[in-house]
Order: sequence, then C-alpha cells, then structure tokens
Amino acid sequence: MPESIPQDSVGLVQPRTLHVDQSLELECGRVLPAYDLVYETYGTLNADASNAVLICHALSGHHHAAGYHGPDDKRPGWWDNCIGPGKPIDTNRFFVVCPNNLGGCHGSSGPTSTNPETGQPWGPDFPMMTVKDWVKSQTRLADALGIAQWAAVVGGSLGGMQAMQWAIDFPERLRHSVVIAGAPKLSAQNIAFNEVARQSILTDPHFHGGRYYLHDTYPRQGLILARMVGHITYLSDDAMRMKFGRDLRSGRFHFGFDVEFQVESYLRHQGETFSRNFDANTYLLMTKALDYFDPAREYDHSLEKAMEQTRCNFLVMSFNSDWRFAPERSREIVNALVQAGRDVSYAEIDTPKGHDAFLLPIPEYTKLFSAYMGRVAGEVAAHV
Amino acid sequence: MPESIPQDSVGLVQPRTLHVDQSLELECGRVLPAYDLVYETYGTLNADASNAVLICHALSGHHHAAGYHGPDDKRPGWWDNCIGPGKPIDTNRFFVVCPNNLGGCHGSSGPTSTNPETGQPWGPDFPMMTVKDWVKSQTRLADALGIAQWAAVVGGSLGGMQAMQWAIDFPERLRHSVVIAGAPKLSAQNIAFNEVARQSILTDPHFHGGRYYLHDTYPRQGLILARMVGHITYLSDDAMRMKFGRDLRSGRFHFGFDVEFQVESYLRHQGETFSRNFDANTYLLMTKALDYFDPAREYDHSLEKAMEQTRCNFLVMSFNSDWRFAPERSREIVNALVQAGRDVSYAEIDTPKGHDAFLLPIPEYTKLFSAYMGRVAGEVAAHV
Repeated sequence: MPESIPQDSVGLVQPRTLHVDQSLELECGRVLPAYDLVYETYGTLNADASNAVLICHALSGHHHAAGYHGPDDKRPGWWDNCIGPGKPIDTNRFFVVCPNNLGGCHGSSGPTSTNPETGQPWGPDFPMMTVKDWVKSQTRLADALGIAQWAAVVGGSLGGMQAMQWAIDFPERLRHSVVIAGAPKLSAQNIAFNEVARQSILTDPHFHGGRYYLHDTYPRQGLILARMVGHITYLSDDAMRMKFGRDLRSGRFHFGFDVEFQVESYLRHQGETFSRNFDANTYLLMTKALDYFDPAREYDHSLEKAMEQTRCNFLVMSFNSDWRFAPERSREIVNALVQAGRDVSYAEIDTPKGHDAFLLPIPEYTKLFSAYMGRVAGEVAAHV
Repeated sequence: MPESIPQDSVGLVQPRTLHVDQSLELECGRVLPAYDLVYETYGTLNADASNAVLICHALSGHHHAAGYHGPDDKRPGWWDNCIGPGKPIDTNRFFVVCPNNLGGCHGSSGPTSTNPETGQPWGPDFPMMTVKDWVKSQTRLADALGIAQWAAVVGGSLGGMQAMQWAIDFPERLRHSVVIAGAPKLSAQNIAFNEVARQSILTDPHFHGGRYYLHDTYPRQGLILARMVGHITYLSDDAMRMKFGRDLRSGRFHFGFDVEFQVESYLRHQGETFSRNFDANTYLLMTKALDYFDPAREYDHSLEKAMEQTRCNFLVMSFNSDWRFAPERSREIVNALVQAGRDVSYAEIDTPKGHDAFLLPIPEYTKLFSAYMGRVAGEVAAHV
C-alpha cells in the first residue's frame, strides 16, 4: 500500500465468500453440486438495490478489482484505474461487485480447491467452464446479494464476453452491458495462440496430467512460456517499439542465449512472476472458455438473432492498436446490435497500447467511460 | 517425385559440397578454421560467368531450392515455384546457386557436424553466426565457382536480409539485389516471438544444454512449440480464417484438451513434422542471426548511409497481409535506397497469404518477379 491511500481509492477492502448449495448444470454436461464464489464489493447498495454494477474479469483476473487488501500491498486491484470515488465506475454512486470466476485460482471453486468426493484438489477433474456457465453462476451471487437487476454488467476482453452473454441469457437482469476490447468469438489466430499456450503447459514434464499438486511441483516453464506468448498479443507492435525498441541490456551483443535485448528480459520477468501466482489448470480452463465462446452458435450462427434476445443498452469500446481483439471485432458486435434494433454507443479509442489498453488510464477512454457510466448513474437516481 | 517430372522443373538434382580450407573470422570474435558448404546449382554457367544468381534461404530453409533428389521425393525444393525453366528465376537463362547456410542442419558445417577438435558434434559450441558472416562465407563459394559478380542475389525473409548485406558489404560483386518480404532489422515484437521459440527449446528437459546428441534424444516438444508460434506469424489472420475458420474437427465441442478446432490439428502437425526434420541448435542460431541483423548499426544507425555503400540495383517486394515483416518495413528499405540515390523498384503484392506468400505461386507476384528477372537476364545477354 502506498504511504497514504489515495483520495480516489476505495481504500482497504476484504474479499467475502458465497457458498452456493444449489447445483449448477454446466454446458459440458456435468453438474457442480455446490460451489464457492469469492467476491469483493465497493460502495453501498441503495435501498431498492438498483445501483449495482457487476465487474467480470478476464483471463488472468480475479475478484480483487480495486483498493488494497492490507498495508503490505504495493499495488491496488487490477482495475483500480476505473473503479473508485469519481472514477468511471464511481463508488460514490454505484455498488460494485466483482467475483472470481468458477475454475479460477483465487478462492472460488476451481482446480486448486478440494473435490469433496476425493478430499484431494480437483486438478484436471474440475469441469470445463464456459462463459455461459460463469454467467449462470453469477446470477446466484446476484440473488444472494438481493440484486434483481444490475444497473450494468461491465467487462474487458473475456470479461466483455461475459457482459454480452449476460445480456443474451438474462435480458431482464441488467439495464446496461459494457463490452470493452471484446469479440463475438475467437478467430483461428486467437485459438492458435491459445493452443500454443496450452501445449506449453500440457507438455511440461512437471504437469503430471494436471495432478502436479500431488507431486509438490507445478509446470513452471509451461506457464512462463504460455504467459510470454500471451503477453506479446496483449501489447501492440508500436507499444513494444516505444517501450523497448531494440535496446540492448548491456549495450552490446553477447552472442549467446542469455538475455540481450530489453524485450527478452521484460518477457521472461512477466512470465516468471505470472508462473508464481497463477494455477496452470486454471490457465488451461480459461483459454478453453475463450475458444468456446460463440453466442451466435445457439442462434443459427446469427449474432443478430442472439442480440435480439437482449433488452439492455450497450456501450462497446475498442482500441485501434489492439490486434488481439481488433476494432473490427467490436464493430461486428455493434453491427449485430444495430441490426437487432438495440441502443448501442460505440467508441474506438486512439492509443498505441494494444489490448492491454482496457486496463490503463488513457484520458479519452476514461472520459468516454465516465460519461456513459454517468448516464447509467443518472438513471439509477431517476429509478429510485 | 510426381509420376512424371513437370516440364517446368529443373528435374533431378544433386547437392555438392565445397570444403573451404581458409579460415573465416566471425562477427562474434571467433574463427572457423575450415568449413563445408553444401549447395545445389540449376542451369548452366555461361562462358564469362555473368549469368549466376545466388539464392539465400530463410530460417528453416536449405540448399535444396528446386527440382527433385530422387524418385521417392513427393515434393520439389522449397522455391520450385520460382526457380525453373520459364519461371521467374529462369534456369534457361540463369545459373542458379543455392547453399545451405553455415550453422544449418542440412550438410553445411553446423551444430550437427563434427567439431574437429573434439571428434564430437559441435552442438552448442558451434559459433554464433550473423547475416554478415553468412555473406562472407558465400563469397568463398562464388570464388570457387569462378563467379566474380552475381547477376543477382535473391532471397525472401532472412534470405532477403542476406541479399541486402551482400549489396552493402560486397558492392562490386552483384548487379542486382532482390529483397522479398524483408526488413531492415527486427522489431521488438519480432524479437519477442523469437525469444519465446528459444525459451521453448532451451527449457526442454531433453535439450541437455544443447548436447542432446550425446544423450540420444532431442528437444522435440521445444521444437514443436517453437515452430507452432513461428508458424502463426507466417500466416495472416485472414489466411487462417479462410483456411480453418472456427471449424471443429468432429463437429462438436469435447470439453477437453485434445484437438477440437482444425487450426489446432494443423499447428500440431506442422510442429511435429518440423521437429523430426530440423535441429534445435540450428533453430536457436538462426533466430539469433535474425535478431542481430541491423546493417545500419555499423553506419551510425543510418540505413541511408549503409545503403550508400551499395552499387547494384534493387527489387524490393512485400505482401500486404504480411504482419511478420509488414510492407512498412520494406518501405523503410526503399526509402533508404532512394535517399542514397539507388535504383530501386518496389512492389507491394495484394494477397491474404501473409509472410508465407513469398514461397507461393501468386500470379501478380510471379509476374512482377519474372518481369524484373527478365530485365536482369537481358543485361546478361548484353553483358556477354
């Protein structure tokens, strides 16, 4: 934690856990008899529970989206740029809820938690999850918190996919869906990058078929490689050029395989840090959820028909240097919404920061996001 | 070999080996006391040795660029589309020479060949090579064949970098330099992808510090991963969409980690085939040669100054869907040449095929390439 908590921070926060004793039928055909969802909340729920905003996290995210857990925290939650007093998701006006997804590795039921049938970690036996499953599991959290309808469901990347699926599957349970740096489904190239990441993990000799917990090890190298290749796709070519160029770490060539260019050092560091903090089975599961996401599939492969199920308003935002989920992919979503007769605002933000931009304090992005969420908050006031 | 050799094939060919007993001083500071270069030739050298064309290969290429080695060959050499009677590099008019680069794994001295000092494979002790070293080594082949001046030096990708370096380092020894799908140096993103490939190999437990030959094994998984990630960068997003889309191999989701999407199957197959036919130490060495390439570095980081060394004419070609070495990179080369007052023709070919396009029979590409090489051949006739 910084010496003093910034004025615009939600401050010290604590995660809570919801134990759901109701079984959850999954798309893969299996059933979770019960599950835990760990989550955080920021702000105060109003009397008629009309000011609640759900935050959905992306591939490597979790429930700790804003504020600090304790005095030793060096960094706040992953979306602290966007959540807090006076920020786009203004905690003076909204009650913000952010759960860790099922299959995650930060407290919700997932491969690292105990399988009640065996008393061992679930590991590879944890069921495969889909975006649709996550959304269904999140309705139980809304029920438990007494939230019949979200003012907005908001997410970036894989989180944006959940915001879309909420609008399609539970149209009466949200008034706004905010889809940032998203896509209506993965391209072959996206799937290909995910497959490289998965193969890195699956073929690591320390993976042990996913039961590495029992061998007191984990597929460290596989996770490092998976994160390195992922990380390249989160940054734009321009962002990398500005950040590293061809700078050499020691100013000269060494003609060996140790780190020579700054970008190598950065990537290895990113990979190593990640490998210490993330579970390999969760990573595998999250990449598959991405690959499977395709809401049009249920509607004769028509995204327009899928969007005809929705009732809420939409904000769609993309970043012009994002080549992982390029603006074209967001425009596919917008076009389907327009054809389905929905109310949609679209913004394409000019930034060299690539896919990662959705996490960053980019003035144009913050301004537009704030303006839209201000409108959502205004409706809440009218709604009360 | 097909049932009958096509009319426009160079037919059956045989590699030859040049043993060079003269030492080669390398950029890394080490010296190769002697070396072998394996090479193929197609067509006939004319009386004054003025019709010789040098083909430089790319990362995973070799000396077998055209024709067939024997009746069991299913496929011809890697650039058979462009080399043969009536093809862009017309073997009725040109004497074509294609060597395997030093450090390669197809017959030239490299990590798999024997280190005379130890009697064991060189392995990781083979010196690191640069594009400049390769070009210098190739001058000895030209000398041995009696070729004082190439009609043209031609290459795609890493091969194009050699064609550029020839023009800078040995300006009197070529009349044309043909640089296809090249770049004046790698970007941070390019280096990052290479680093992922290297880490895949270096951290494979079967790598044994590069001495896997002595353990009767090889870093198969590392090579597979390296090739998978490389292959994604050779294809465009559009090419992948057209080739695979999101097609499922069995028509439905399996909710497991076996192959589900066609693109996964394709990538794994590419990786596996490659891992059986390529040496890991060579792969490492080739990616480093790519990373190091930066001819401007010797000339105060001015590509224009580097190009002022050249005397030949240039053809530069790029492909609009190539995101590995995008057309912008070729235009950097063209701009430097124009500023240096050189004669340069530039073509940007419209194709969805990505970086791999330089290997493919694309009508517009073939036509422009043929027209330029026709001009080169016409000069040879005048030259005789």
